[in-house]
This record gives sequence, structure tokens and C-alpha cells, in this order.
Amino acid sequence: MKVVKKLNEMSKISSSLITKGFVLGLVPTMGDLHEGHLSLVRLAKSQCQKLIMSIFVNPTQFGPREDFKKYPRDFEGDYSKAIKEGVDYIFLPTDEEMYGTDYKTFVEVSKLGSIMCGRSRPGHFKGVCTVVLKLFNIIKPNRAYFGQKDYQQVVIIKKMVEDLNLSVDIVSCPTIREKDGLALSSRNKYLSTEERKSAAELYRQLNLAAEMIGGGERDLGKIEKIITGNLKKVKHIKKVDYFNLRDNVSLKELKHAGVSGQKILAATAVWVGGTRLIDNIIIKIE
Amino acid sequence: MKVVKKLNEMSKISSSLITKGFVLGLVPTMGDLHEGHLSLVRLAKSQCQKLIMSIFVNPTQFGPREDFKKYPRDFEGDYSKAIKEGVDYIFLPTDEEMYGTDYKTFVEVSKLGSIMCGRSRPGHFKGVCTVVLKLFNIIKPNRAYFGQKDYQQVVIIKKMVEDLNLSVDIVSCPTIREKDGLALSSRNKYLSTEERKSAAELYRQLNLAAEMIGGGERDLGKIEKIITGNLKKVKHIKKVDYFNLRDNVSLKELKHAGVSGQKILAATAVWVGGTRLIDNIIIKIE
Repeated sequence: MKVVKKLNEMSKISSSLITKGFVLGLVPTMGDLHEGHLSLVRLAKSQCQKLIMSIFVNPTQFGPREDFKKYPRDFEGDYSKAIKEGVDYIFLPTDEEMYGTDYKTFVEVSKLGSIMCGRSRPGHFKGVCTVVLKLFNIIKPNRAYFGQKDYQQVVIIKKMVEDLNLSVDIVSCPTIREKDGLALSSRNKYLSTEERKSAAELYRQLNLAAEMIGGGERDLGKIEKIITGNLKKVKHIKKVDYFNLRDNVSLKELKHAGVSGQKILAATAVWVGGTRLIDNIIIKIE
Repeated sequence: MKVVKKLNEMSKISSSLITKGFVLGLVPTMGDLHEGHLSLVRLAKSQCQKLIMSIFVNPTQFGPREDFKKYPRDFEGDYSKAIKEGVDYIFLPTDEEMYGTDYKTFVEVSKLGSIMCGRSRPGHFKGVCTVVLKLFNIIKPNRAYFGQKDYQQVVIIKKMVEDLNLSVDIVSCPTIREKDGLALSSRNKYLSTEERKSAAELYRQLNLAAEMIGGGERDLGKIEKIITGNLKKVKHIKKVDYFNLRDNVSLKELKHAGVSGQKILAATAVWVGGTRLIDNIIIKIE
């Protein structure tokens, strides 16, 4: 496994692999790898001939009062996990390498980027789209892998790829969870033992919404209200940014559950103590 | 010469040409070809092995009160000019093909896109960058050719290419002019005979600025004021959007001319009757 820090070198390696006819897979990460990332790597390994993992804590997707500085970084740990999974290249650029000193160009997906997490994190998805587009242009992968835990991110990146006529396949992979249902996230490290217990409530409440729909409730506004109320009552949950039931493709708000076969995204973002956590599930109407 | 209307077909043709090892040149145009465009084609022909010209009057770069609908369109004329110059492919997509019905993704180069023409045409360069990026992604050219008449556009596209790590070379070509100095532009067609005479004053005033600098004047603010005043007095000139002397690379405003060898962009946009015209020259300090 080779670690590449320079953008030009990464670009050259990629071009040479493409010329040789390899199918390239990219797993973009911010490092601090957990089983969620590794599940992406395993799927990518099974579908691609050469696998590049990028590790870059992207400053442009963090707001000024967010956790960019304290975001967990553990390159040694990442290195040993990546080599064990058979990653071929780690692309590990510096901020300077990616943005220089006079960076000016940003990509935005309108509407989709300003709802849900975009409402409480203005500019977040603009930063995400920009860095992902840059990585695509540098590496030119055939396929890129993203976790469904960041569901809105996947929808937005797919839309960007379609709109900008990019020729990369976006593959999304199921959320990996702890035994009690908590979705794996590097930010779980921020939680105290007590907060950690409360955090499991996110997944429980998402499933409660699914049960209510499964039980015949069709008024989604009512379910949103009940679940939001439940979340607010949980110890250590300081704020509920949103609990939404939306169309799983367009992310449009739904007031009522519809026909059999319809898929509904149930998604939430809450603050557990000083830590913002997100989670989601897809509910299929039977 | 083949005319390609479908985006997927264009993309396939391009990929196949790249696989065969051809150096691809792209000349992006809005059609209504004149000698300015043809000079780009001739340079591209001399540097590339296969030449694609796109013809697309891009709706997203026109403001709501601008001339999108009346912009000159003459595909028959364009076709015969392009075939004569040895263009290999004309890419002629529809609005629907380029933007569909649910288009959401836009690219912006901050600061550079909101000065000069960006001030009087908000959103213009966002539309330009977006369509150019789309064309680059569809066609994947090695080189793309732009006229220096749209100087700010060239600077912005170069910055976008650098920032987004695109692997296309941007080549810019000198402005082609009528005998009296008027820069060729499809919009010159809008001018009445009387307005046409006044339009030649743009180039004269740009050269007057050069003469003033050549004569030793170093106070650029003073020159801007004099030239703007001169332009305002010209018959049929309804409004001077700007006359600026700026750094030719950063486009930063300059108050004073500096050392020998410095290059200054003199650029202007004025309304001649109901027609907005732009022009520029580069002034080198001796």
C-alpha cells in the first residue's frame, strides 16, 4: 500500500492505472476509520481492481463554530486498518495541497443542500460537493463509495454527478451499527458514557416511526411531532435539529404516507450533549 | 463533419477518440460564428488532432431581462463555416439535453465572478462556469479555446480549472477586430448604422488609455475618470457599466501603474443604444 500526499502524483498514478485498463474504486473518508468505512472498502474491493482511499478532514465542510479542529485524527490506526483490508493507495493531501492560498471555486446543489442538515449547517454541503468533485477530478475513479448514514450527502452527490455529467458511479452502502443500534460515527468518541446510552435512542425512535407507519398510521406530520417530542424528552438530548419523514429520492417533505411500495426516508439530527449526531432509515410501505 | 445532438452520444464519441489516442480540442461557442470564432478553430486545428465545436446558447448565463431570446442563431451559416474550417464534430445539444427539468448544480468562482461584468450581470459567470464545466465533463478535451475579447471569462475559467483540478489546457486567442477597431461580436448585429459608428469608440478609448500610460501618466484612477467621461459623451452611448484598469492576472484594481514590464488590463462595458458591448486590451508598461 502506497501513501500519496501530493495531488500531482496521485493524478499521475491514477492516469497510469486507467491507461492500464484497471477499474478504479475510490472510498473518500475523513479518516479515523471504523467498521462503517471498512464495509465500504470491502464492497469496493469486490467491485474494483485498484482501490484508492482518500483521507482528508475537509475544512470547507465545517462551519466556523464546528468541530474541525477537534475532529478525531489517527493516521497510524487508519494505515494499519487500510493495509489489512487491501487498500492499494491512500491519498493523504494537506489542506494547502487541496486549497492553496487563493482558493475560489465552489459547487452547490441548490435546494437539496439547504434542507435538513443544510439548515443547521449552512455551507456544509457546498464544502462536501466541492471536495468530492476535486477528488473525482484528481483520481478519476470508475466508482466511488459512500455510506448511507450520510443519506442526504449521497442524494446530493448523486445529483451533482448527474447534473455535471460526471462519469463516476456512486455506490452507497448500508449503515453499520453498534449492538444497541447506534450508527457508527467518528463523532461517537465525543460522547460520555451517559450520553452514549442516550445516543441509542436515535435508532429506537427511527424504528418507532417505522412501527407507527407499519401499524397503519398515514399522517406523517403526526408521527414527526410524536417522535420529535420523544427525542426531546431523552436525557442528554439538548436539541433536536430535525426529525423528518421525506421522499427517499427527491427528499421532498411528505405529509401523508401513500401507496404500497413507497419508500420513506426517516432522518434525524440531534445534539447529545455537545455532540451532533445523525441517523436515518428507509421505511417501505407494505 | 458530424453533428451530434445527444449528450450521451457526444460522450461516447469523445471517449472513443481518447482511447484511440487523439488530442482533442474543444471550441465552445454560442453559434452565429464570425472570424473571432474561426480564429479559435484555426489555432485549435493546428494544435489538436480532432476538433469539436459546441454550439449552445446557454440559458443559465443570461439574466431574466437579457437577450437570450433574441440572441442571433444561424445554424446553417455556422454549419458551412465549420465544415470549411475542418471542424470534426459539432456538438449541438438542446436546453433540455443540457439541463433537463430538475437542474440544481452550479459552480461559482467567488470574487472574480462578481466584479466588472459580474456586477452588471449577476449570475452570468456562474452560468458560464457551469456550462463550461459540463462541456468539459461530456467531451473531456485536452485543450479548450476561448477568445480574449471575453477576458474576464478566460481568467475565471482558468481559475476554475486550477481550483477544481481539471486536466484541460485553456488556450486564449487574440480579439479579432473590424477595420475601425470594433471587436467582433454576435451582438454587433443589434446595432443601427449610427450606433455602429459610435461603437468603434470603445477601442479608440482603450488605446487612448494606453497612450496616456505610454506618455508617463501613472495615476490610473485619473485615467479611468477621463476615459469614462469620454465614453459617456459619445453619441448613442447610453451607459458606461465600467471602464477599469486592473492587474491582468488577478483582476485586482490598480490605483497606480508600477514597474516596467507590468501588464495592465484595460477593460470596458458600455451600452450603445440597447446593446451592451465589451472590449479590452492589455497595456504593457515600457
